[in-house]
Amino acid sequence: MDIKYMRRAIDLAKGGWSKVKPNPLVGAVIVKDDIVLAEGYHHYFGGDHAEVDALKKINYIAEGATIYVSLEPCSHYGKTPPCVEAIIKSKISKVVVAMEDPNPLVAGRGIKILRDNGIEVISGILEEEAKKLNEIFIKYITTKKPFLILKSAITLDGKIASKTGNSKWITGEESRAYTHHIRNRVSGIMVGVSTVIYDDPQLNTRINGREDVSNPIRIIVDDQNIRIPLDSNVVRTTNEQKTIVVTTVNAETEKIEKLKSLGVDVILTKDKNGQVDLEELMNELGEKKIDSVLLEGGGTLNYSALESGIVDKVMYFIAPKILGGRDAITSIEGEGIDKVDDAFKIDDISIKRFDKDILVEGYVRKER
Amino acid sequence: MDIKYMRRAIDLAKGGWSKVKPNPLVGAVIVKDDIVLAEGYHHYFGGDHAEVDALKKINYIAEGATIYVSLEPCSHYGKTPPCVEAIIKSKISKVVVAMEDPNPLVAGRGIKILRDNGIEVISGILEEEAKKLNEIFIKYITTKKPFLILKSAITLDGKIASKTGNSKWITGEESRAYTHHIRNRVSGIMVGVSTVIYDDPQLNTRINGREDVSNPIRIIVDDQNIRIPLDSNVVRTTNEQKTIVVTTVNAETEKIEKLKSLGVDVILTKDKNGQVDLEELMNELGEKKIDSVLLEGGGTLNYSALESGIVDKVMYFIAPKILGGRDAITSIEGEGIDKVDDAFKIDDISIKRFDKDILVEGYVRKER
Repeated sequence: MDIKYMRRAIDLAKGGWSKVKPNPLVGAVIVKDDIVLAEGYHHYFGGDHAEVDALKKINYIAEGATIYVSLEPCSHYGKTPPCVEAIIKSKISKVVVAMEDPNPLVAGRGIKILRDNGIEVISGILEEEAKKLNEIFIKYITTKKPFLILKSAITLDGKIASKTGNSKWITGEESRAYTHHIRNRVSGIMVGVSTVIYDDPQLNTRINGREDVSNPIRIIVDDQNIRIPLDSNVVRTTNEQKTIVVTTVNAETEKIEKLKSLGVDVILTKDKNGQVDLEELMNELGEKKIDSVLLEGGGTLNYSALESGIVDKVMYFIAPKILGGRDAITSIEGEGIDKVDDAFKIDDISIKRFDKDILVEGYVRKER
Repeated sequence: MDIKYMRRAIDLAKGGWSKVKPNPLVGAVIVKDDIVLAEGYHHYFGGDHAEVDALKKINYIAEGATIYVSLEPCSHYGKTPPCVEAIIKSKISKVVVAMEDPNPLVAGRGIKILRDNGIEVISGILEEEAKKLNEIFIKYITTKKPFLILKSAITLDGKIASKTGNSKWITGEESRAYTHHIRNRVSGIMVGVSTVIYDDPQLNTRINGREDVSNPIRIIVDDQNIRIPLDSNVVRTTNEQKTIVVTTVNAETEKIEKLKSLGVDVILTKDKNGQVDLEELMNELGEKKIDSVLLEGGGTLNYSALESGIVDKVMYFIAPKILGGRDAITSIEGEGIDKVDDAFKIDDISIKRFDKDILVEGYVRKER
């Protein structure tokens, strides 16, 4: 029964997808005698928390009821008063949470206050699902660095483009549409400068029939020579959708100033053989409140990202096509790993189908 | 109800896996008033057909019963008397078949004889499953060429080996064990000469705790220079497990004779720029009664096989690992296709899990 209502709370939480960021997705269900009294979720950043959204619907009258909530209720005054107060006031007798607050500064505090007020608290119901739901939030709140998702669209034989560079379209419409739902959630989208030079993409969020979408900040990883074309889409539209060009401290000041004069933000990192230092970049992005980055890179940038340990999750869309070609391009190139035993390991694999394509998702193991 | 019993017939049929080849896998269930009277299947090549295997258990007494059989009953004297006679004799009143006999010379004949004898016949129940079950038989009986399965074990980023050639082991134990079940079924296993030179594989069937396995004939695709090492495993053991070396008509007679003197069979095809003609090879193998070939090739041979149109099915074992490397090796190399629109299309994709690995199977579309 706990599991049934917690699953419902987690499903409700998803209603806030892309609108609550950088807050966590939270859902709540209030139940008494196996009857649902009210449901709620965190709808948008700055709006009521899930617990209050539900309690308001029953005028905070819930004596003897149980509330299922996908995250430990907050105990601090933020944009809204603390949820633990609302719960105590409503005379709820039992609180079931999926997971503690991942913020180490406040973890367990809400639960403690509830218990100190004589309320029974159970924690850890559907904890794994809840952690997955808020994987971005958890990473960012605990490390101050963005959760990085490496996304690739490959043929069954692992190619992202033919030997002539042709890549339109490896995957089908449903896969591509889903990518835009991810873009709608993340704060940043990252590609290498070569992608801008060869494909001149817009890197915005396009969802059929929806205007209320959120465009990620575009992060272009350039090198110390700053090769980004000034007439590229990402530069031209930086005033509608922010573009950040990343280069090294050795880049020419004149080129940097030119970009800035066009409205482009520029991040300088220390020089790594003429290339950007990606770890430092993640710290910089974290400071800019970018909680998540979708990496849609080419093989070289993708490999550098994996090598520097900044990739949290991979999303591989696999299309049932075969391109072949010794000189075709694969999703991860660069120097490569010598031995299979030393390969990057991907844990907790899950599979989804999008029409004829297969999406394989998993998490990069941090120790190799 | 028809579906339930036909599914059972198809499951029974699988009992003959690897033992009935090159015959089809067939199962039968005899039912009266929703009670199963008898079940049977074709156990081994030369043994009773499924219908007779079931009927014998009830002394051919089945008046008014229905028999579900995964393939149209035979009407000719082969190794055993025709099944239609046994059915008629047993006074079965209804026959449900999944599919007609794929052999165009006899297709529909068994059904006609049954109907001419006043027996009701329904055809086409679970036809797709039945066709998949006997995909090897259907291809071979209709074309006289082997059903060719391209099998590859890749990382999530599409590599079959690192840039140093290391490939042990991309996939886990369960995947590798399953490969041996496939080897146990096919008549031939094909690799390029480079695989013999670099890996010196045995290419036999190894299934834990089983001695009754069947080793496929090893088919080594060499080139006109005949590079196969005479001390390789496949050459040394040719008298226990037959090895065929394939080269072109331009190969040196002396080298050919040397191989033959060691017990190796040699097939010569016409010359295609120093390489073997794979289409001609398939005809030759078909004449040698090889109904199926598992291609465990490297990227170059795999591409040639796809290009020449001989690949029927692909089996991709995908391991949750990433190797990276511009110079790492992918499953399909060669010249490659220029445009994604012209890629080889894989239809009817299905997915299985083997521990942490994913098996993606599908069928190569014949028109591109």
